[in-house]
Amino acid sequence: MATSGKVIRCRAAVAWAAGKSLSVEEIEVAPPKAHEVRVKIVATGICRTDDHVLVGTFPDVEFPVIPGHEGAGIVESIGEGVTSVKPGDKVILFGLPQCGECSFCLNPDSNYCLKSHLTEPQNLLPDKTSRFTCKGKQIHHFLWNSTFAEYTVVPEYTLAKIDAAAPLDKVCLLACGFPTGYGAAINTAKVKPGSTCAVFGLGGVGLSVVMGCKAAGASRIIAIDINKDKFARAKEMGATECINPQDFKKPIQQVLTEMTGHGVDYSFEAAGTADTLIAALASCNMNTGVCVLAGEPPAGSTIPIDPFLLLSGRTCKGTLLGGWKMRDSIPRLVASYLEKKFNSDLLITHTLPFAKINEGFELLRAGKSIRSVLLF
Amino acid sequence: MATSGKVIRCRAAVAWAAGKSLSVEEIEVAPPKAHEVRVKIVATGICRTDDHVLVGTFPDVEFPVIPGHEGAGIVESIGEGVTSVKPGDKVILFGLPQCGECSFCLNPDSNYCLKSHLTEPQNLLPDKTSRFTCKGKQIHHFLWNSTFAEYTVVPEYTLAKIDAAAPLDKVCLLACGFPTGYGAAINTAKVKPGSTCAVFGLGGVGLSVVMGCKAAGASRIIAIDINKDKFARAKEMGATECINPQDFKKPIQQVLTEMTGHGVDYSFEAAGTADTLIAALASCNMNTGVCVLAGEPPAGSTIPIDPFLLLSGRTCKGTLLGGWKMRDSIPRLVASYLEKKFNSDLLITHTLPFAKINEGFELLRAGKSIRSVLLF
Repeated sequence: MATSGKVIRCRAAVAWAAGKSLSVEEIEVAPPKAHEVRVKIVATGICRTDDHVLVGTFPDVEFPVIPGHEGAGIVESIGEGVTSVKPGDKVILFGLPQCGECSFCLNPDSNYCLKSHLTEPQNLLPDKTSRFTCKGKQIHHFLWNSTFAEYTVVPEYTLAKIDAAAPLDKVCLLACGFPTGYGAAINTAKVKPGSTCAVFGLGGVGLSVVMGCKAAGASRIIAIDINKDKFARAKEMGATECINPQDFKKPIQQVLTEMTGHGVDYSFEAAGTADTLIAALASCNMNTGVCVLAGEPPAGSTIPIDPFLLLSGRTCKGTLLGGWKMRDSIPRLVASYLEKKFNSDLLITHTLPFAKINEGFELLRAGKSIRSVLLF
Repeated sequence: MATSGKVIRCRAAVAWAAGKSLSVEEIEVAPPKAHEVRVKIVATGICRTDDHVLVGTFPDVEFPVIPGHEGAGIVESIGEGVTSVKPGDKVILFGLPQCGECSFCLNPDSNYCLKSHLTEPQNLLPDKTSRFTCKGKQIHHFLWNSTFAEYTVVPEYTLAKIDAAAPLDKVCLLACGFPTGYGAAINTAKVKPGSTCAVFGLGGVGLSVVMGCKAAGASRIIAIDINKDKFARAKEMGATECINPQDFKKPIQQVLTEMTGHGVDYSFEAAGTADTLIAALASCNMNTGVCVLAGEPPAGSTIPIDPFLLLSGRTCKGTLLGGWKMRDSIPRLVASYLEKKFNSDLLITHTLPFAKINEGFELLRAGKSIRSVLLF
């Protein structure tokens, strides 16, 4: 039964235009329409993708907009037809929907959904209107999430109910950064027990890859970064060796090949540059190696790949949010978190009150944080 | 028991230097040493790789050399320690060895072998000597095959005994061109029944991909070439549609995406250019599509790949001789041929006496042949 009520006035961080800082404003949040859910956001992570929105490099975003897509909260009210959650339920929101009805959702091998931003921008809710206004102006949604608002409205298929025991200030990371890296190892590469892995780039995604490789039973996890300050954390998460390419005169792919005999079984690119992708591809076994692209290279860039790296049998593949069908997977990921199968808390370097959101972005840009979590 | 005997004098086609035509000469072929086999070649195909040798673009070849690596014949004599074949056995020779002992051979997921040319050139037999002389000069082996000689000597692990009922003038193609394309579909892409496939380039490898897709049960096989003359043959082999990119104003990847809704399940590059690889990658489903690189792009070239083609979930992988462990697979492929599970005979456009070998190369270069088979 629908419980949608009145307009709520609350705080939100609005990006009025590309290239400007977020502005914390009072906004109005309309009640959910049919098949929509209004959620009180309790905690939200700051992901680099949000910074791409602010800078203006995230494709097809419309301003003004409320960013944020790594949020967890509590259902406040539901629109007509909503059946999977009720007020009071703890939920995680995610930017990659799972409508459950399109050809991709019906394909067990796919985790894409035709309702996603890559097919049609998720800047307005499915009925092509916004639930947000500020100072008399309509504000756009972001990926149907907009978790930088104390209350947000989302389609039912962009959230999932989670265990009531889950700490929202921690499991909000399961919405984006953590599952991307963890799933790159578990789902996309399908790392086998006893195998050897190399992870390029030790940010939030790369460290989550390390955790995924460990959970999959890899016997050797070589973590690579040009910033040695990240090595202690990587080892805490499961890296067996940490190396800095700047410590070697040889190309890092040659170093890794010599370290492992014939290259690693699985390599992961989580630094987001063309050079690291080529190095990752060349570092894996010439015949059976699998290289997973998990980082996000600059938009418009191309990667000059030597076809002979592939011709001898290597595989290069991308991962979309770690290959998880999000609505199906989030409850299970939370259960695994509660069973301590992984410790994604290690990614959280800062917890800040929501009002300090711009400070959180400054920490990210300065390379001082892995993940900052904002609390309302 | 070894049966090695005397030096044999016979005909062979010698490439005295890069850039010159083959010269049919009388050569001397020494008896096989331990773990070697002397084979009377009955039939050999002409593969484009042999032309790369003649032109001088095949890496790490040494001249003078006897090329040829798609041969079938009869064992003439064996060296000490040879156990898998005896004189009179029908055999197929292959350029990718399977020593059975190295870490790659012991890995069931790999078909590489550390004895291969890519690790150490196969220009001399494993004891670092040649069995060929001509006019008093030592002649090099090619991929331990040198099937352009009436008699050749090869290590035991570069040949396999086949069914005595197999027609050697036909099954010689199972040594290289056919299994590369057929295996790209069956082993590398693992094409599923009912799936949709696109094959770029309808030479010997591409047509073998078409046969592999058909054997795997693909329901739609779209064959693509700029030469319409190849379409009838492609349809005979299983292509359900044939299209010419020059008939469209739109890029061919857009045409294929529109033809199939969201791209093909599997795409295959068998034309050997950077443009066709990019088109093949972009033509497969953005999330679950698999693109297999089966053609051979020019050495030293790079392919500028847009990383966003991969990030949404696509897979791009190469295939080394179709992923077959050759010594294990050849007898089974011959059995499948005899059971008419595929008809590789359709690839044979010309059968010529060995003396006309240079005519065979001219047909290849003029695009007039798929496969010419030479008979001694």
